Amino acid sequence: MADLQKALQTLRSLDFSKMYESDFFLTWEKSDDEIRATFEVAQALRALRESNVSPKIFDSGLAISMFRDNSTRTRFSFASACNLLGLAVQDFDEGKSQVAHGETVRETANMISFMADVIGIRDDMYIGKGNTYMHQVVDAVTEGHQAGVLNQKPTLVNLQCDIDHPTQSMADALHLIDHFGGVENLRGKKIAMTWAYSPSYGKPLSVPQGIIGLLTRFGMDVTLAHPEGYEVMPEVEQVAAANAKKSGGSFTRVNTMDEAFAGADIVYPKSWASFSAMERRTALYGRGDTEGIRALEKELLQQNAQHKDWECTEERMKLTNQGKALYLHCLPADISGVSCKEGEVAATVFDRYRDPLYKEASFKPYIIAAMIFLAKVKKPAEVLAAMGAQARRLYE
Amino acid sequence: MADLQKALQTLRSLDFSKMYESDFFLTWEKSDDEIRATFEVAQALRALRESNVSPKIFDSGLAISMFRDNSTRTRFSFASACNLLGLAVQDFDEGKSQVAHGETVRETANMISFMADVIGIRDDMYIGKGNTYMHQVVDAVTEGHQAGVLNQKPTLVNLQCDIDHPTQSMADALHLIDHFGGVENLRGKKIAMTWAYSPSYGKPLSVPQGIIGLLTRFGMDVTLAHPEGYEVMPEVEQVAAANAKKSGGSFTRVNTMDEAFAGADIVYPKSWASFSAMERRTALYGRGDTEGIRALEKELLQQNAQHKDWECTEERMKLTNQGKALYLHCLPADISGVSCKEGEVAATVFDRYRDPLYKEASFKPYIIAAMIFLAKVKKPAEVLAAMGAQARRLYE
Amino acid sequence: MADLQKALQTLRSLDFSKMYESDFFLTWEKSDDEIRATFEVAQALRALRESNVSPKIFDSGLAISMFRDNSTRTRFSFASACNLLGLAVQDFDEGKSQVAHGETVRETANMISFMADVIGIRDDMYIGKGNTYMHQVVDAVTEGHQAGVLNQKPTLVNLQCDIDHPTQSMADALHLIDHFGGVENLRGKKIAMTWAYSPSYGKPLSVPQGIIGLLTRFGMDVTLAHPEGYEVMPEVEQVAAANAKKSGGSFTRVNTMDEAFAGADIVYPKSWASFSAMERRTALYGRGDTEGIRALEKELLQQNAQHKDWECTEERMKLTNQGKALYLHCLPADISGVSCKEGEVAATVFDRYRDPLYKEASFKPYIIAAMIFLAKVKKPAEVLAAMGAQARRLYE
Repeated sequence: MADLQKALQTLRSLDFSKMYESDFFLTWEKSDDEIRATFEVAQALRALRESNVSPKIFDSGLAISMFRDNSTRTRFSFASACNLLGLAVQDFDEGKSQVAHGETVRETANMISFMADVIGIRDDMYIGKGNTYMHQVVDAVTEGHQAGVLNQKPTLVNLQCDIDHPTQSMADALHLIDHFGGVENLRGKKIAMTWAYSPSYGKPLSVPQGIIGLLTRFGMDVTLAHPEGYEVMPEVEQVAAANAKKSGGSFTRVNTMDEAFAGADIVYPKSWASFSAMERRTALYGRGDTEGIRALEKELLQQNAQHKDWECTEERMKLTNQGKALYLHCLPADISGVSCKEGEVAATVFDRYRDPLYKEASFKPYIIAAMIFLAKVKKPAEVLAAMGAQARRLYE
Repeated sequence: MADLQKALQTLRSLDFSKMYESDFFLTWEKSDDEIRATFEVAQALRALRESNVSPKIFDSGLAISMFRDNSTRTRFSFASACNLLGLAVQDFDEGKSQVAHGETVRETANMISFMADVIGIRDDMYIGKGNTYMHQVVDAVTEGHQAGVLNQKPTLVNLQCDIDHPTQSMADALHLIDHFGGVENLRGKKIAMTWAYSPSYGKPLSVPQGIIGLLTRFGMDVTLAHPEGYEVMPEVEQVAAANAKKSGGSFTRVNTMDEAFAGADIVYPKSWASFSAMERRTALYGRGDTEGIRALEKELLQQNAQHKDWECTEERMKLTNQGKALYLHCLPADISGVSCKEGEVAATVFDRYRDPLYKEASFKPYIIAAMIFLAKVKKPAEVLAAMGAQARRLYE
Repeated sequence: MADLQKALQTLRSLDFSKMYESDFFLTWEKSDDEIRATFEVAQALRALRESNVSPKIFDSGLAISMFRDNSTRTRFSFASACNLLGLAVQDFDEGKSQVAHGETVRETANMISFMADVIGIRDDMYIGKGNTYMHQVVDAVTEGHQAGVLNQKPTLVNLQCDIDHPTQSMADALHLIDHFGGVENLRGKKIAMTWAYSPSYGKPLSVPQGIIGLLTRFGMDVTLAHPEGYEVMPEVEQVAAANAKKSGGSFTRVNTMDEAFAGADIVYPKSWASFSAMERRTALYGRGDTEGIRALEKELLQQNAQHKDWECTEERMKLTNQGKALYLHCLPADISGVSCKEGEVAATVFDRYRDPLYKEASFKPYIIAAMIFLAKVKKPAEVLAAMGAQARRLYE
């Protein structure tokens, strides 16, 4: 297990002591060492698993999942990660209710956490709400723990909020590290995070925001491209700019897909709704204005339809570095002529990258497991080193 | 772990041998020693858990849950309890069907129990049905075990029936024991179990019945208060009276909230529907008379509305012992001005008792786990004593 | 554990090496030794379980279930089997969507399988689709494993397709082996697999097909009876005929229930829809022709109603060997005067066979567990032999 040893060596050189008994909200709230530690623990867990060695750290315990939006891959990634560490998943299904007021969050958070070690939440639908809700939950269980209601504070894993999608962006980054042979090899690589046309509307901003907020940390040239009117949150652009400055990379915004693709080593073409549209939608939902929502939907679809040329075609791929940029997507993609008439990506491009795309997704369970591991294990390197002896399957 | 040692010492002095391979239907079907043993095992399990020691008794096994009514906290408490002991929960969702006829119960009970160690059922909607259904299930799996279909008889845990809510009342009692520093300190304490106004209707009787049927065993002065027309089942009142006589406490029924609150050490104000209304509703459902159900609902809401003054206000709290009675509720409460316009309790009262309320709820997983433990482990004290050496988290 | 030793002795004499890392689609794709090995492992697992010895082989891992049709007993059997071996079940609920096109199957299969050891699928609704879908899933995860996306290929268990219901037919066969005291005692026994009237329509063909495709392997006289117009798939009849020829038994088709029951040692009266009706329905669903579906339903119910005399009555039971044939059913049965006015079986017949019927069903979890065990454990006999020392309950 050379991979394990390599990961442990790096891990021992990092300072991530504050992650113990902490939570994972946004990548840019974590230090470089903490981000790096998450990658290394994920790699170590993958190495153990691939050698059929169990990285179980719990003898019992629950992981509570709250999906306030649909999910397949994140749901299964979370279930996989928890199972790998020895936790049973208990889903909390609150129905499609409006974001509950503070009091009820406080009560509910405690009532579902009696033996919870982890709470995973997806709440990405409403601007200004999702991340706030996660903090309310964490505050509630922190109080509950202090008051003797809960005998431990469960750790929160942000499974996508209105601002960031850290399990996705971290999995994407780990995929790049794996693909380019090390985090140091990301330096100077150009990634085009670009808007793409989709016949549906209102896709969350958390993926593009997560990507520009994370990949700017590694000295990469991060280019964000979208049509006018599809702006992301200005705060996150500021994060990206600051990261780029600190890491010696760059963060650039352009107005065409072609500019973004030019010379790119990596492309990430994906539909999203603009920040301002999301804000309007949140306000309409808050007022229960269904007619307003319908009108907005119509307006946004018309706006989208003006940008059908924002597609990741074979021609555009040729603009990239040697025509061989690595294509990324969080999946599922809107594939032209396959899942829709006109979409984000040409079928031939998508097909060519199928294996790397699935591999990209396969890092997510390990990223989630690493986030939990670092919050729950005081001395991660020692524990990972000690795990070598234990077989996952009790019998071969 | 002084708490563990204390619990074990008491446990060794009690006779609860009949609980092994038995079921938990109603608290008043259990002897005083058996009730006490359940508290002690719950305390022992909590002590172990808080010391991060695993009380797992199963290497594999299923706990089947059947919720014939909505549930959040009991669902999570059951999941927590089962997980703590090493069982996976498999939910049986039969849809919102009518109570099935005998034949089908027999078949279904066996078909879901092939490897079930525990069956937890909530069936509290229809008077005369819920507890009966639980007995049908237990009879069916007992026969199935005798016929060689099942290699063990799963143990039943009543997660709320039409008559009793033993996991709630036992958790409430354990909260009182914890709060007042021992079961012996409950003697002479006055508890006001009183009806309170709620804008909804048809809440089960099992909580007030469970409370008067259990707390009268500990020499307490149990006062039941409700407006005329909100009578509980006479059989349960008889149980309460007999318990009070035997334990040297008292059971009194009064007609005003003020009388009940006067000098009370504990108050438990909560809405419920009257026994006779529940009987009428059950009959209407049985006939599928939706118009009759609507008419009854209207009538009951009007009846409720005549008693909006039955609210746990700051003024009423001042009537209690030094104005400092402990406020109990099974949650969620109807809080005036918060979850409804006018409800069971004033917001300031509820807020002041938030921490103890959550703590009250936190005993339920341990009570459920104790019920299972005592039904599945032949020598509980020995096993609990032996558990000290095993860590819950495999790695710290 | 004499039963375990006996099973292991037989197991050691069989060649089933190809089952390791394989899948279970149709019984007739397996060799006689492989079928036999499945029975022996199931018996061994049952013997271990009944001695309270854990046959857990996984320290962690997920079993994914996909139910594209309703299920209670197979769902709980699958959950039981997986739990017994140490896997947590994660249900994949894709909604009642149309059978997805190849591309999406490929993606979905990988996205839910990151840590899956097992995938169990029920897809029995559409002729020509269910088994095909299962193969698409297996092809997808095989590719995913080869491409490094998945670190193992999960094993598929067919929980009922359009062609076969192997976990049912194998459990039925094991029940017969148990009942008659050995597989060798099935030789020469007559089984009547006959259509029976039901007021519902469109029940899958997989049970009768599974039965004639499997039981013809054991030298039995397998008689298939149904009214004209209720033909099963010709390919499966050919399998049955070939099996019978090879095993020295017989496969006969008759046109009346009486002929089939005459002298039978076992009867299996059960409703199904004809192959051609199922084909028509599949085509109508494919076109989304709801009016056509309604018309077909009406036509088929009328057709059914012409055969109400196809009922397993007391009189018919008297035609069987000494009037004491063993009655089989996959459950739930349509019982005349109980679950419907006129149905598959008289209430008195059903009642008399209740215990053996439940016992029949109780073999399914062990059959499923054996299928998984043989796909995941390289040296099953050695591992089963070694399991004797480990207690299932950690504490008695």
